[in-house]
Amino acid sequence: MTTTAVREQHANVTTYLPNEPADAVVFAACTEDVQTTVRICAAHGVPVIAWGAGTSLEGQVNAPRGGVCIDLSRMNRILAVNSADLDCVLEPGVTRKRLNEDLRDQGLFFPIDPGADATLGGMVSTRASGTNAVRYGTMKDNVLSLKVVTADGRLITTGTRARKSAAGYDLTRLFVGAEGTLGIVTEITLKLYGIPEAISSAVCPFPSITTACDAVIATIQSGIPVARIELLDEVQVKACNAYARLSLAETPTLFMEFHGTTAGVHEQAELFGAIAAEFGGGPSEFSVKPEERSRLWQARHDAYWAALLLRPGAKAVATDVCVPISRLADCVEATKADIVAMGLVAPIVGHVGDGNFHTVLMVDMDDAADLAKAKQFMARLVERALAMGGTATGEHGIGQGKMKYMAAEHGEGALDAMRAIKRALDPHNIMNPDKIFTL
Amino acid sequence: MTTTAVREQHANVTTYLPNEPADAVVFAACTEDVQTTVRICAAHGVPVIAWGAGTSLEGQVNAPRGGVCIDLSRMNRILAVNSADLDCVLEPGVTRKRLNEDLRDQGLFFPIDPGADATLGGMVSTRASGTNAVRYGTMKDNVLSLKVVTADGRLITTGTRARKSAAGYDLTRLFVGAEGTLGIVTEITLKLYGIPEAISSAVCPFPSITTACDAVIATIQSGIPVARIELLDEVQVKACNAYARLSLAETPTLFMEFHGTTAGVHEQAELFGAIAAEFGGGPSEFSVKPEERSRLWQARHDAYWAALLLRPGAKAVATDVCVPISRLADCVEATKADIVAMGLVAPIVGHVGDGNFHTVLMVDMDDAADLAKAKQFMARLVERALAMGGTATGEHGIGQGKMKYMAAEHGEGALDAMRAIKRALDPHNIMNPDKIFTL
Ligand SMILES: Cc1cc2nc3c(=O)[nH]c(=O)nc-3n(C[C@H](O)[C@H](O)[C@H](O)COP(=O)(O)OP(=O)(O)OC[C@H]3O[C@@H](n4cnc5c(N)ncnc54)[C@H](O)[C@@H]3O)c2cc1C
Ligand SMILES: Cc1cc2nc3c(=O)[nH]c(=O)nc-3n(C[C@H](O)[C@H](O)[C@H](O)COP(=O)(O)OP(=O)(O)OC[C@H]3O[C@@H](n4cnc5c(N)ncnc54)[C@H](O)[C@@H]3O)c2cc1C
Repeated sequence: MTTTAVREQHANVTTYLPNEPADAVVFAACTEDVQTTVRICAAHGVPVIAWGAGTSLEGQVNAPRGGVCIDLSRMNRILAVNSADLDCVLEPGVTRKRLNEDLRDQGLFFPIDPGADATLGGMVSTRASGTNAVRYGTMKDNVLSLKVVTADGRLITTGTRARKSAAGYDLTRLFVGAEGTLGIVTEITLKLYGIPEAISSAVCPFPSITTACDAVIATIQSGIPVARIELLDEVQVKACNAYARLSLAETPTLFMEFHGTTAGVHEQAELFGAIAAEFGGGPSEFSVKPEERSRLWQARHDAYWAALLLRPGAKAVATDVCVPISRLADCVEATKADIVAMGLVAPIVGHVGDGNFHTVLMVDMDDAADLAKAKQFMARLVERALAMGGTATGEHGIGQGKMKYMAAEHGEGALDAMRAIKRALDPHNIMNPDKIFTL
Repeated sequence: MTTTAVREQHANVTTYLPNEPADAVVFAACTEDVQTTVRICAAHGVPVIAWGAGTSLEGQVNAPRGGVCIDLSRMNRILAVNSADLDCVLEPGVTRKRLNEDLRDQGLFFPIDPGADATLGGMVSTRASGTNAVRYGTMKDNVLSLKVVTADGRLITTGTRARKSAAGYDLTRLFVGAEGTLGIVTEITLKLYGIPEAISSAVCPFPSITTACDAVIATIQSGIPVARIELLDEVQVKACNAYARLSLAETPTLFMEFHGTTAGVHEQAELFGAIAAEFGGGPSEFSVKPEERSRLWQARHDAYWAALLLRPGAKAVATDVCVPISRLADCVEATKADIVAMGLVAPIVGHVGDGNFHTVLMVDMDDAADLAKAKQFMARLVERALAMGGTATGEHGIGQGKMKYMAAEHGEGALDAMRAIKRALDPHNIMNPDKIFTL
């Protein structure tokens, strides 16, 4: 397809970066479609940009050099669910919600949950995580094997269904997070988990960001296997109250979830309650009712949409960093101070068990000064995180938006190593060029 | 050093492969020593072989083309323990036992425990695991960042202390398991864990390998967060009884460990007991006493030495494979049948929660027919594991011994990708050449 509407819809739309459409969009129905397209593009030196659901936040699906976008959303079959092995095999266009709907009947689930209903192929490629990562890890930890079409059109397999292997280089982890710059994923084998016997959630208000963060550190250190531990600052709580008709106290708040046996989640919740109280938090409201829990987590997942209410007409620009957890309170507090000093509207939400947090900046895209201020804020945020021993992005990836920080984070040596790998696997630089770094 | 004794001591000694010493051994005291040595070797096209404790099992530290062995065991400082972040920074020559002795006072531990007292640098490089991997993962899951001297003598850093990152290619995971073929690790940042409030262990006999494996599958599926679940076949139990003066029933047996709160481990042990009984296992003997637990796990860790008693004068040749857990019983049973049919002495022990098991073949190295039979057995074992969707090695790595299976496991395409990465990062092929694959 080459209509403008389709091409533009397949280029970045979720951030401040300009839309840079590919020249054509191919809807792949099977692996051979991908191989054929890649081979044709390789023969002509034309860029190939993989596309899942287009929910990435750093301009990952833009086509700055034009080329062909391969839309993988129609490759959406679940090929096998092996319940004895707790794994499944699927095509990259399956979305996380579809997968979990399909698995529910078998008492299984896949935990990684970016706020959007992303495809698994996109999630593999951005090394996505979400609210459950503190317990279940990120995509890096939950992919057993991939089938990948490389830049020459060959199909390779990066692993087996064995849970672990020491047989050579870890190609799986190399393609996880590569943002489509090394190849196109056409099949994914994922780890699954049994739906826990019992799940309980808690909402716990705190007097300040620092006390909330200190409670998080103490909780993680104490070894409580929290499944989710999310921070919402008072601005985000206010937005969620309005959007989801909740009536939470408008103060920094932790949303928690505990997974385990009935006795186990009860014990976890009690231990957490005691820790929270030590830091002046509480009272916690606990719930084991599925409806209440979904309402709560839906509100958390809708944080982005809720934020839009805070400044009607503005666009939400989400950005994320991740720091060692001991620096989390410092980093969030300094970031909030910056938001206030710069007069920005920007709620903070975070997967704080991992030291990862987001700000959602409400930007008036027609106001150049406003946009400039937002960019300045984001640059300072990344510099702050790096200075604290953190990373420019915990989960959204680099795309175009964060390329400028790669050298500062990794150093020229490591960046050169990445470039060498890119050249080795994609010598003509056709796979999603000018993302992560330029050559 | 260039004395024959030192050179031979630094070449492989743990398996059937011949000893192929390097031309010289350099004892590095600091990163600069490593850089200087690598630069000199690079200038002269001389191979560089890193050496930690020399306990690898597939000829990883042999020097088939000669060259310089860099012994890292003197780089053994623990540089930082960040208890709030549950991480630490250390030099590669620190051994796992030293690390845990140092951490104990702070209530922390590092879970990965290959049977030998390996160095962390060696463990990183073989992607080692051990008895705790079912709960805590392997080295792949527990390294946050590395400093690596690459083939041109540059020092690069592969990550930060942040718990997760989506910033570019996962260089950390590329060096983990690379067996020193891409660079030499000179600093390691590891995840740590709090020593659990309560630990309990159990020993549970089963009527057969199949029933024991079925109990393992059911345990994992039920979501019991077992910390360790080890299978010993009746041959190994017999050897352990003799070596460690235990009096276990000589039948397939599971050694278990549970970590958690006092109530939690009690619940886990009860749930496991019920599952075991369903499959005809038991009675389980539980213990929470530290001395009893250590005695048990020491016996498990000494399985290799115990096996030597089974055939005095023979050498123990350890080999490992890993299969999807649903195929574990089949794979172990077929392997046992092969042992019997071939008249071999070869106990089986396994980290079965991951589908990983070992056979320890007792081989008379002076008897060519005996050695040939052992090699034939090992080839059939790997073929069997691959045919069941598994891997040629779950944790020992490829070295020289398993190079021949790389194409069968990965396919030529993936193997070519590995070779391309090797050439990109080590264009003159000086880093531990002719390991994992030949160029
Ligand atoms: C409201 C909202 C909330 C979000 N919350 C989170 C969050 O909590 N955590 C988080 O991690 N992310 C979050 N995200 C970001 C986004 O959802 C993730 O980055 C997601 O992984 C992108 O998946 P996708 O299918 O939309 O991929 P796309 O945007 O289509 O593509 C992303 C990248 O992957 C590549 N790609 C896609 N498919 C393939 C394939 N099959 N093979 C190779 N490369 C491919 C593309 O070329 C591109 O570089 C959020 C986004 C929104 C809009
Ligand atoms: C009795 C016994 C039981 C064992 N049980 C297990 C087990 O349960 N699980 C398991 O995983 N393994 C096991 N092993 C194997 C062995 O202990 C592991 O492979 C271990 O990781 C090797 O560490 P090492 O320090 O001895 O490394 P070495 O043998 O010295 O080196 C191993 C490889 O790593 C490279 N290397 C070493 N240091 C560095 C560095 N700093 N930078 C780059 N490359 C480096 C070497 O070049 C070589 O290729 C066992 C071995 C024995 C003898």
